[in-house]
Amino acid sequence: MPDGHNRQIRLAAHPKGMAQLSDLVMSEEPIPTPGDGQMLCRTIYLSLDPYMRGRMSPGPSYARGVDLGGVMVGRTVSQVVESKMQGYEPGDFVATWNGWQEYALSDGSGVRKLDPSDAPISTALGVLGMPGMTAYVGLLHVGELKGGESVVVSAASGAVGAIVGQIAKIKGCRVVGVAGAQEKCDYVTGELGFDACVSHRSDTMAEELARACPDGVDLYFENVGGKVFEALLPLLNDFARIPVCGRIATYNDTGPPPGPNQVPGLMGLTLVRRLMFRGFIVFDHADLEPDFLRDVSAWVRSGEVKYREHVVDGLENTVEAFLGLFQGANFGKLLVRVSTDPTR
Amino acid sequence: MPDGHNRQIRLAAHPKGMAQLSDLVMSEEPIPTPGDGQMLCRTIYLSLDPYMRGRMSPGPSYARGVDLGGVMVGRTVSQVVESKMQGYEPGDFVATWNGWQEYALSDGSGVRKLDPSDAPISTALGVLGMPGMTAYVGLLHVGELKGGESVVVSAASGAVGAIVGQIAKIKGCRVVGVAGAQEKCDYVTGELGFDACVSHRSDTMAEELARACPDGVDLYFENVGGKVFEALLPLLNDFARIPVCGRIATYNDTGPPPGPNQVPGLMGLTLVRRLMFRGFIVFDHADLEPDFLRDVSAWVRSGEVKYREHVVDGLENTVEAFLGLFQGANFGKLLVRVSTDPTR
Repeated sequence: MPDGHNRQIRLAAHPKGMAQLSDLVMSEEPIPTPGDGQMLCRTIYLSLDPYMRGRMSPGPSYARGVDLGGVMVGRTVSQVVESKMQGYEPGDFVATWNGWQEYALSDGSGVRKLDPSDAPISTALGVLGMPGMTAYVGLLHVGELKGGESVVVSAASGAVGAIVGQIAKIKGCRVVGVAGAQEKCDYVTGELGFDACVSHRSDTMAEELARACPDGVDLYFENVGGKVFEALLPLLNDFARIPVCGRIATYNDTGPPPGPNQVPGLMGLTLVRRLMFRGFIVFDHADLEPDFLRDVSAWVRSGEVKYREHVVDGLENTVEAFLGLFQGANFGKLLVRVSTDPTR
Repeated sequence: MPDGHNRQIRLAAHPKGMAQLSDLVMSEEPIPTPGDGQMLCRTIYLSLDPYMRGRMSPGPSYARGVDLGGVMVGRTVSQVVESKMQGYEPGDFVATWNGWQEYALSDGSGVRKLDPSDAPISTALGVLGMPGMTAYVGLLHVGELKGGESVVVSAASGAVGAIVGQIAKIKGCRVVGVAGAQEKCDYVTGELGFDACVSHRSDTMAEELARACPDGVDLYFENVGGKVFEALLPLLNDFARIPVCGRIATYNDTGPPPGPNQVPGLMGLTLVRRLMFRGFIVFDHADLEPDFLRDVSAWVRSGEVKYREHVVDGLENTVEAFLGLFQGANFGKLLVRVSTDPTR
């Protein structure tokens, strides 16, 4: 058992609007000792994802929020330090739920063992983890993608969007991304092979998006909400599907925007164009994980799916890195390297 | 060939908001003569349906609007008067598209021959016609109904809603209706066997609806929009489906209602509860017509599905009857008897 303390980040206050540094505070406690049927894991990589903003709020969401004073939840790649569980030995690498801390106990729930010779272990939090599976499930299953369709994905250089667009290209679709910085747009078209990418920072985004989609839009993979969503609506073709994966532009809103109320118009469009909006959460589709791992692992090995990671070093930089997600400060899947990756 | 003239109702002006009597005017022209491959049909029953309001507007909808000066479109049960088409003889009964007039030519497109010994011919415009098929397709196919679910349907005594609720009961669901007049609510629970019915005219509709749905709502069959839609949203369970069939409360709106804008809230709820909204039009599902006719005909014969017709006599009363649809003046499937039904 390692000496020393376990540094942790706890929820000190429910954020109002955008989270503040003071809402999430560092604390320490002794490193815990595993009981029978448990193991102690040291965090190597912590995944930071927009959904975590929902966990900081007391209101109802699809999962229970973190209690005030509790350690923030999060998916991690960790290494087993000490094990009183069958099937796990010290030194094993696992994808697990250590949260925003250096060490945590696990009883094996939600744990997947990783073989570093298959793929870099960090990918278990990105392209071969929840973001990749979110893209796969949302596009192919929820979105009912058909080859040859016209697809738009927002947050196109992000952990989910980049995979969405590349899978759609593999399936023979025309793909347009929406991203922020010019550097990201260039990456999306140059490296990832999207057909076009429009910046949501442009004053003429709506017009550029319309020009980039001359045949309309059959599937819009919704990651952001806000003005990108509004700009997309007029472009939707009959029978378009909108898998609603995330709405990062709105997560820090404290109330509804001013009127008029566009709900009747949206529902009218839904009827006339026979649109389908479907919200989804990757956790509901665990049955598709074997298909996902088989397909996307093969595409990563063949180079058909590329990925990019944005690694921030040190647990002490976690909160600032998390807040940056909402400004687009990351470029690729955002990870905190909490301790040294012994495989690199 | 019959003597005399063909009375018709033509679109004189695009209505602004609620249609006016002066927007739809009666005219006459000679009864047309069928050419080769055509037949002349006399209208017996004309179906009046809310979707027709969309056809009176110049804006884009799922089907082209009626041109100014054109005869209003509509599904009819008609009798063949003269035929130069193989397979159709004078005296045959057909479901066809004569529109708002006494006579029309047909080349057989969209025509279904009717056997009066199977079912009353008027049912081809209601329970065994488009409204019935809309209910069947929307509930079972678009709405992905599962046995044992909690279902709410608006316009519950109407041509579509009454069939939706009865099919859901056959499938083992708990069914709550929303209707207007107390007489209609009583019919929905007493005659049709719904578990409860709430009046949208009640000041406490939202509370009554919540009480009538103690286990929430798994499927909301949307016929009306407006305040019923708003009252339903908080009751939706995780994974609820909302087939969007109609929005009669909004068809005469001339602009969006005042704010705030509830679209972000609606999309947030869609994500958190994994809701599915899907607009549909029965015409897109013609492949399901054999299934529909087989199942619903059997249920009508067995008495498991009941239906009610509201018959108005005389083409000259068509416009007033149509306007009444938006006030809930009809009680059952609204039909105009344009000429005598020789089967009764």
